[in-house]
Amino acid sequence: MGKNAIVGQSGGPTSVINASLAGVFQSCQARGAQVVYGMCNGVAGLLEKRVVDLSSQLKDHMDVELLKRTPSSFLGSCRYKLPPIEEGREVYEKLFDILKELDIGYFFYIGGNDSMDTIGKLADYGKLVGSDIRFMGVPKTIDNDLMITDHTPGYGSAAKYIGVVMKEIIRDATVYGTNYVTIVEIMGRNAGWLTAAAALARAEDCEGVDMICLPEIPFNVDRFVEKVAAMQAKKPSIVIAVSEGVKLEDGRYVCELADDVHAVDAFGHKALTGTARFLANTCARRLNTKTRCIELSTLQRCAGHLTSRTDITEAYQVGGAAAKAAFEGHTGEMVAIKRVSNAPYQSTTELHPISEVANLEKKVPLEWINDTHTDMLPAFLEYARPLIQAELTPIYVDGLPCHICMN
Amino acid sequence: MGKNAIVGQSGGPTSVINASLAGVFQSCQARGAQVVYGMCNGVAGLLEKRVVDLSSQLKDHMDVELLKRTPSSFLGSCRYKLPPIEEGREVYEKLFDILKELDIGYFFYIGGNDSMDTIGKLADYGKLVGSDIRFMGVPKTIDNDLMITDHTPGYGSAAKYIGVVMKEIIRDATVYGTNYVTIVEIMGRNAGWLTAAAALARAEDCEGVDMICLPEIPFNVDRFVEKVAAMQAKKPSIVIAVSEGVKLEDGRYVCELADDVHAVDAFGHKALTGTARFLANTCARRLNTKTRCIELSTLQRCAGHLTSRTDITEAYQVGGAAAKAAFEGHTGEMVAIKRVSNAPYQSTTELHPISEVANLEKKVPLEWINDTHTDMLPAFLEYARPLIQAELTPIYVDGLPCHICMN
Repeated sequence: MGKNAIVGQSGGPTSVINASLAGVFQSCQARGAQVVYGMCNGVAGLLEKRVVDLSSQLKDHMDVELLKRTPSSFLGSCRYKLPPIEEGREVYEKLFDILKELDIGYFFYIGGNDSMDTIGKLADYGKLVGSDIRFMGVPKTIDNDLMITDHTPGYGSAAKYIGVVMKEIIRDATVYGTNYVTIVEIMGRNAGWLTAAAALARAEDCEGVDMICLPEIPFNVDRFVEKVAAMQAKKPSIVIAVSEGVKLEDGRYVCELADDVHAVDAFGHKALTGTARFLANTCARRLNTKTRCIELSTLQRCAGHLTSRTDITEAYQVGGAAAKAAFEGHTGEMVAIKRVSNAPYQSTTELHPISEVANLEKKVPLEWINDTHTDMLPAFLEYARPLIQAELTPIYVDGLPCHICMN
Repeated sequence: MGKNAIVGQSGGPTSVINASLAGVFQSCQARGAQVVYGMCNGVAGLLEKRVVDLSSQLKDHMDVELLKRTPSSFLGSCRYKLPPIEEGREVYEKLFDILKELDIGYFFYIGGNDSMDTIGKLADYGKLVGSDIRFMGVPKTIDNDLMITDHTPGYGSAAKYIGVVMKEIIRDATVYGTNYVTIVEIMGRNAGWLTAAAALARAEDCEGVDMICLPEIPFNVDRFVEKVAAMQAKKPSIVIAVSEGVKLEDGRYVCELADDVHAVDAFGHKALTGTARFLANTCARRLNTKTRCIELSTLQRCAGHLTSRTDITEAYQVGGAAAKAAFEGHTGEMVAIKRVSNAPYQSTTELHPISEVANLEKKVPLEWINDTHTDMLPAFLEYARPLIQAELTPIYVDGLPCHICMN
């Protein structure tokens, strides 16, 4: 008799994280897992034994198709951080007791940096106590900041969303022909991958954004205002993409210059918001121009109605590859995407020890940014363009995309 | 020899305003207009003789198809207000001189309340000076606040966008299972049609928004916080749709309670923004919950990637009907949409004197709002649901929707 498998989702949702869940589920079933469990709200829920038998949720192929088209985490998510093993053995004992009770042989966690930290610790503890459970990480994050993997599932769809809405925002912003500075705030705490995707908007039918500000480049408010003034001397409507995570040279986030309260999450991350608003207010005051700030907010990570088919396909593949690896005996590893070629775009998967990934951040290479720090160079576009190709049409019911929910 | 026609776009852009332009253009051509001119930036541009021959821009059927799929105003827009005739005769003389020079027989203006005011004044002046130019209004506004017409082109697509993203935001917001109040700010200065569209999100696969706050109902901050507290006692994640235009009983906008600067446009409209932020901050302070505010901002009016095919079709039809009416001798009128039946949904067009429309606002009927002022009743859903049906797929090129631009 085969063992059971369990899969969880963790961290911020994406539009394609459920495609990875579908990949794990179908591949585990195909490989003979007796039951494929889903953790509700990740490891936090598992600690409370909140699990579901996924076959009771996904009954046929139509359910799986809907799952691939359903944004955000079907199983719910968490931002739970496992303690270091030496400080919290009782947590690990509890978790492994629950896994034993469920007769788990294969454990999958779909997430980003912090989730890979979880997989790493569980694999380490498993080794310590001689467990034969295989722990595999499945990459997911719109932030695209995981090491080793060419890119992360979730990024392509978020990048496509950003490219599309920037194009639409630019058209909207230029319509009056009057002085206007539009500042669009895009997610990305320390890595500017998402903000860089605003560069994709430029095409024959779109002049593109006028400035892109990444957290990789120290931000200077005065220099920013000067650049905007210089641009506005040439044309009235300026559209700027700015990362929520842009920082001053002294390391403070620009949004900290505004006077809002900033909360901190379980991983010690500050809630960053208000960067665009602060900069828009600053431009309005100093340049006597109308301004508008637009925060893409959670829309950029949950826009299931606008996904990249390339991204969904790869999200499904990494889930399946993780299951394959686990059934073949791998543990403590993450599936990475390896780019085979750009034209035509082809990719495959490979495995890497979780230690090469967990708690590290991949930033945008500085050589992909132009000298004046306002735009992305062609190397970035060559990297990102293949990831936003093609669409997966939602199934519209009564005018709105149909999703699948937990019963 | 037939006379020439001219068409302009005015006011805030929509995703389907160019479908009306396509309707005017093709119908005028079919009826034998020698040249169909487009005004650049509406009447403001016309006063500077900035016009284009539309046939030089729209060369074939593919161009017209792209035009229908291009959001925001192809010709540019303006917020120019004509003076009363008695106070500004020279403006009218100048405009009519330009129209004479261009040999215009048919004048079309696509816009909302303020644009219909323009059509009304031009038709009045035309009558006064014995001009034979026919002036026709083509309705357009995401706000859906025009009298007489069952609904306005632009509303269906904005309502669909709002329904779709609310569904996605709700999925995203419930993912952690923790206390969270998400407040989504939706456009609508005095009429709550767009905010009401958030009610469309509720379906078998979506629990829907928890509260809808329309400007039609006087807003009380304390009562709002009490309602949120009561809801959060039952479930952790609350999602609320609030109109930017909600007002206190004393008539002040809720956003005026925040301390931002508020600009005023040429029509004396205050820039309303910050309502959701103010309410989210208030909840965070008083209820000890995490909060998030999301402003849909211009995304809700320019999301050409997500339109209602019903809306685009009707936008095209009202443009064509305006041309037909003008060529048949009508002037000083607006094309209205008349709903013929709901199941199946059918509509037709009819003509109304501009005086029944200009400078008036149609609000959401109070009997479509529930007793506790938190939700829409079925009558609203029956009204709005047909307007969001079906999609018009963008033409994607290199991963992004293709648009058409002025040359």
